[in-house]
Amino acid sequence: MDAFEAITTRRSVREFTDREVTDRELDRLIEAARWAPSGLNNQPWRFMKVTDRSLIEDLSHMTKYRGVVAGAPALMAIFIDADEMYDRTRDLMSAGAAIQNLLLAAHETGMGACWLGEILAKREDVQALLEVPDSFEFVALVALGWPVERERSGVRHPPEKFVVQPPETD
Amino acid sequence: MDAFEAITTRRSVREFTDREVTDRELDRLIEAARWAPSGLNNQPWRFMKVTDRSLIEDLSHMTKYRGVVAGAPALMAIFIDADEMYDRTRDLMSAGAAIQNLLLAAHETGMGACWLGEILAKREDVQALLEVPDSFEFVALVALGWPVERERSGVRHPPEKFVVQPPETD
Repeated sequence: MDAFEAITTRRSVREFTDREVTDRELDRLIEAARWAPSGLNNQPWRFMKVTDRSLIEDLSHMTKYRGVVAGAPALMAIFIDADEMYDRTRDLMSAGAAIQNLLLAAHETGMGACWLGEILAKREDVQALLEVPDSFEFVALVALGWPVERERSGVRHPPEKFVVQPPETD
Repeated sequence: MDAFEAITTRRSVREFTDREVTDRELDRLIEAARWAPSGLNNQPWRFMKVTDRSLIEDLSHMTKYRGVVAGAPALMAIFIDADEMYDRTRDLMSAGAAIQNLLLAAHETGMGACWLGEILAKREDVQALLEVPDSFEFVALVALGWPVERERSGVRHPPEKFVVQPPETD
């Protein structure tokens, strides 16, 4: 699958089979993630692989998307580390780039993934549960597994909606 | 080139040949960008293709990376639109994911790109020059072109630096 195809065919996957995700498979996703660019190459992202059932259960109670989390064989918790911070705005974008790499690598290998943002409303609870350093800011949770087969549509605005014209110059 | 290879071989390119980047080529990058995920699928990103020499020159004076900008045949200015905002933290990460798609699509077609963040220090000047709506927040500039051939190394921390262990459970 070429990169353009991976980019345009990736969809959020919210239902997973019972097949486990191995530690090696998760490491490959992190390998992809770490090649994202970052400001001054500060690499502010931090990753935690979560496959322990009791932690997954506890996390599932911290979001209204409980079913997606509880039904996933693995989760990736993503943080940025204020101790490495260049600038929060730019670091958040770099984290987003790293997460996108992770999602594309998962999709290409046939895995399914869902990037969950709503759980950030429970940031403090998540950080306490996962016992991360105080300098960490929890920024995303990704549910990972092997997709239940079904059609998944993707809807995006047409370019007229989000491509703006530059000003005229003389 | 598969997605994993595109992800791990992409490097920032700061020197471009004289070959132009066509409008069609830029549109394909935007097509890739728009397939990024976003919170509640709000698609907060906005793109402006800049190929006008006088605008490129003016933008080049707003960053200390003047040479990279002035030497690029095309620029992509990226904004998030507060009128579509879900949550600034999550929207910035979505913009980062969209930019990463754009960089990967560029790399796969043989183009080179450099994501510039330092120019955000001149956000107001950039927004005034580009005459964007008040609801827009300028978040990134990407310099685009065809790379001058040379070795480009990429350095990333080893996983021990950024993979954190989950807590022990009973």
